[in-house]
Amino acid sequence: MDAGVNEFELIRRFFRGRTGPGVLLGPGDDGALLLPTPGMQLVMTMDTLLSGRHFPEDLPAADIGWRSLAVNLSDLAAMGAEPRWCLLSLSLPQADETWLASFCKGFFALAEQAGITLVGGDMVRGPLSITVQATGEVPAGKALLRSGARPGDRICLAGVPGEAAAGLQCWQAGERSGALVDAFCRPQPQLQLGRRLRGLASACIDISDGLLADLGHVLAESGGLGAGLQLARMPTSAALAGWGSAAQQRAAQLAGGDDYLLLFTVPPVFNLPSQWREIGRVEARKGIRVTDADGQLLTDLPHGWDHFARGDSSHA
Amino acid sequence: MDAGVNEFELIRRFFRGRTGPGVLLGPGDDGALLLPTPGMQLVMTMDTLLSGRHFPEDLPAADIGWRSLAVNLSDLAAMGAEPRWCLLSLSLPQADETWLASFCKGFFALAEQAGITLVGGDMVRGPLSITVQATGEVPAGKALLRSGARPGDRICLAGVPGEAAAGLQCWQAGERSGALVDAFCRPQPQLQLGRRLRGLASACIDISDGLLADLGHVLAESGGLGAGLQLARMPTSAALAGWGSAAQQRAAQLAGGDDYLLLFTVPPVFNLPSQWREIGRVEARKGIRVTDADGQLLTDLPHGWDHFARGDSSHA
Repeated sequence: MDAGVNEFELIRRFFRGRTGPGVLLGPGDDGALLLPTPGMQLVMTMDTLLSGRHFPEDLPAADIGWRSLAVNLSDLAAMGAEPRWCLLSLSLPQADETWLASFCKGFFALAEQAGITLVGGDMVRGPLSITVQATGEVPAGKALLRSGARPGDRICLAGVPGEAAAGLQCWQAGERSGALVDAFCRPQPQLQLGRRLRGLASACIDISDGLLADLGHVLAESGGLGAGLQLARMPTSAALAGWGSAAQQRAAQLAGGDDYLLLFTVPPVFNLPSQWREIGRVEARKGIRVTDADGQLLTDLPHGWDHFARGDSSHA
Repeated sequence: MDAGVNEFELIRRFFRGRTGPGVLLGPGDDGALLLPTPGMQLVMTMDTLLSGRHFPEDLPAADIGWRSLAVNLSDLAAMGAEPRWCLLSLSLPQADETWLASFCKGFFALAEQAGITLVGGDMVRGPLSITVQATGEVPAGKALLRSGARPGDRICLAGVPGEAAAGLQCWQAGERSGALVDAFCRPQPQLQLGRRLRGLASACIDISDGLLADLGHVLAESGGLGAGLQLARMPTSAALAGWGSAAQQRAAQLAGGDDYLLLFTVPPVFNLPSQWREIGRVEARKGIRVTDADGQLLTDLPHGWDHFARGDSSHA
């Protein structure tokens, strides 16, 4: 810790004086004072990211700041909510102003883009770890849940799964730029898509644990359903197609986490916009069946991760 | 980690299926869905507790559970808010069911007493650390702030400061029971007092950093005021009076943290109920002046802590 730089000064310098819609009192008192919008319901989520577990220890502080907010915004997107307010708890090994300035640059760049206001939190001395709690608002009765999928519903994506997992492997191999690394370092929460899905999607989740695992959560929460997926329909990109073997690409797409894309189901009567891709259908029969480009059923599906063993964040 | 016990099972077993007022959807989706009360404003706070820093490493898990919620409820009390919903992020070195069951016993005992509902959060593998975010509601315009103290206001307490700091020293010396140890292990957030102070107190804060430091925050936020305190008026208890030297008692009362008592100011026209104790007055002249029982000004005041150096939680 720099001599003469104490926590109060650091907090004041980096986190105070911020205001936004519905903020009656921001950081600086025992709590923030906020004005909810009449007629709206609240959506709340919280995730902790640990250094070396949820992100590489050598990830730049600006990317850590971006990421710690992005994973929470993605949860708000998956519920169809408008971002409103967030709180940040930072555990830092030392009071490093340069690191903090860089962290804030990434954090607040995304906060401003998403229209969310930091209203409080705390800073403690300890192993590098970041917890963000985010609150959003959604019109009454319009929240997107995991539990509404029905047999016959189309299973959809509007983005390329697997790029983040591939990007992490690129990072670990020493790459520091490129589309895949960017996909890992700067996940883009699909907030606009979430808003658009209100009243359309029967179920929605964000892919943080891997596509199969998260689809499994939707099917379980929707009453124990199953699904058929077609690999040939899976969105890909030039960057992902140019990376690794076909088996590695498939594993990244089906089981790689950290995508923070929305996975959603829509009733079959609905015509999909061109940028949404149907990758399969919900079925009444339990289990997820994946067929390859030749129509052959895959027998050896990559597993979803056990988050506790892996250390990923997951919702209580 | 026990074989066969994964995070999802643990989360389901300990944290799901909870519901309460205003909870449309609790743990289990991407976020909780909540119904704010019309006409109320929201109060939000978040604190992280690290093992070995904010509590002794050998503190029983039930006390850690109680404490991690108590420090946040105390913030809601200091704003005059009714507790509503909380989120919990647990970082645990391993998935220990016995520890979790004990943690939950303490956490939910206080949650039920205070009327707050756990609505989400996450669990990750890492050094023992607990972050709780709590939301309360307060009638519009009635929140207690730090910033409203005026010269001449009475500075009041309704409890004994210093017991928690003395209790921590008892714990560190090997004591495991008694009034002081209990005061440290099971802080009682003064929620009822906070509600009563609405419309009466000109300013309010909870003593987490030590009385002088927290009074200093009130005086600074109220426009740079000062205060005169009289040690002879300081509430004490048989337990505290029987502990340590007079100097140690004084240091615990003036600078010991962790009390989680409300420190509040009320205009002089107001008659104090018998259980509230006036310990001094707000003054226009900056600085805090403390006089002893003989009316002598103390020249060597114990310092408040720099939280970052000490590692205590503090609000951004």
